[in-house]
Amino acid sequence: MINLGVLGSGKGSNLGAIFDAIDARKLDTRVVCVLSDNSGAFILDRARQRGVPAFHIDCAPFKTKLDGDAQARAIAILREHGADAIALAGFMRMVKPGLLQAFPHRVVNIHPALLPAFPGLEAWSQAVAYGAKVSGCTVHFVDAGMDTGPIILQKPVPVFDTDTPQVLHARIQEQEHSAYPEALQLLSQGRLKIEGRVVKIS
Amino acid sequence: MINLGVLGSGKGSNLGAIFDAIDARKLDTRVVCVLSDNSGAFILDRARQRGVPAFHIDCAPFKTKLDGDAQARAIAILREHGADAIALAGFMRMVKPGLLQAFPHRVVNIHPALLPAFPGLEAWSQAVAYGAKVSGCTVHFVDAGMDTGPIILQKPVPVFDTDTPQVLHARIQEQEHSAYPEALQLLSQGRLKIEGRVVKIS
Repeated sequence: MINLGVLGSGKGSNLGAIFDAIDARKLDTRVVCVLSDNSGAFILDRARQRGVPAFHIDCAPFKTKLDGDAQARAIAILREHGADAIALAGFMRMVKPGLLQAFPHRVVNIHPALLPAFPGLEAWSQAVAYGAKVSGCTVHFVDAGMDTGPIILQKPVPVFDTDTPQVLHARIQEQEHSAYPEALQLLSQGRLKIEGRVVKIS
Repeated sequence: MINLGVLGSGKGSNLGAIFDAIDARKLDTRVVCVLSDNSGAFILDRARQRGVPAFHIDCAPFKTKLDGDAQARAIAILREHGADAIALAGFMRMVKPGLLQAFPHRVVNIHPALLPAFPGLEAWSQAVAYGAKVSGCTVHFVDAGMDTGPIILQKPVPVFDTDTPQVLHARIQEQEHSAYPEALQLLSQGRLKIEGRVVKIS
């Protein structure tokens, strides 16, 4: 059982999938708080609608990372609510060593491609532009790099040559919504062991 | 219908799969000749056993590419036997612009990973070392880069954390043996169109 803090910047569809999996008793996890760098993000409403404490973290002056005072404030809120693992769900900033050291090997992310292919922004657009015929999603532990941490699980998704980036994104998100709860359940059950950069599942 | 020249350096299991697909009437292709940079490669025996002309091409002084006199000789043999498309099947050398210009948009390769992930040598070992949970194979047109050309098709393969490189390699090869004939059949039927770096299938 984990007490999960969730960080997101947008609509929070993966948080929705996490709530659905909890309700369906497929995920033994409590979401203890939700934080967003974007005060208008729907992920905050989604949390509040469920009675989960939700906070806007003003990340200025940084534009692309969670660092400095904002990081300290995020860590304080997460600890105060008893979070012992962190899920990034569409969080559009790099997390820095401070947060990673506060929750060692307990910060996970979902990325809309089969890493190491297409790291970074709009991975679905990258896949379409590259002409990939298979892409997918990756749940991984977060390390100091950009989408480089040890991989928990991956799910493939076909890419058709008629796909727009939007159509592919929707197809990948469908897989994300099963992959993320599945990976978090493995974490919650204590079944993940990181050896070097390989995640072993017991 | 294409007249295929095949280049390989090893045992030629993909050539075997091509022969099987031809026999099963799943692939409307004639293999007109087989060339190897390795005089002892079983791919040459495999061709000869079937009565397909097979040639060793001495690639010295080059160690990692098919270039110079060897390239000229290869092109001459391929043309002499009426080849109008080239399939690389475990060919361990870079092909250079001379061959690509002799058969424009008609040189294809199969790579044991889901490109752009894990280009280069022993892609299956790279996938195991990286801790990937999904890998696969890619059939692509060859361009001047290393495993960078437009992708015809890809097939995903699961990676288990108990996999050795050898075990994963065998699982990927199983998919290669259906992917390569399938891609060659699309080429043979004239159904592939390269637009930028995207291959459209009609």
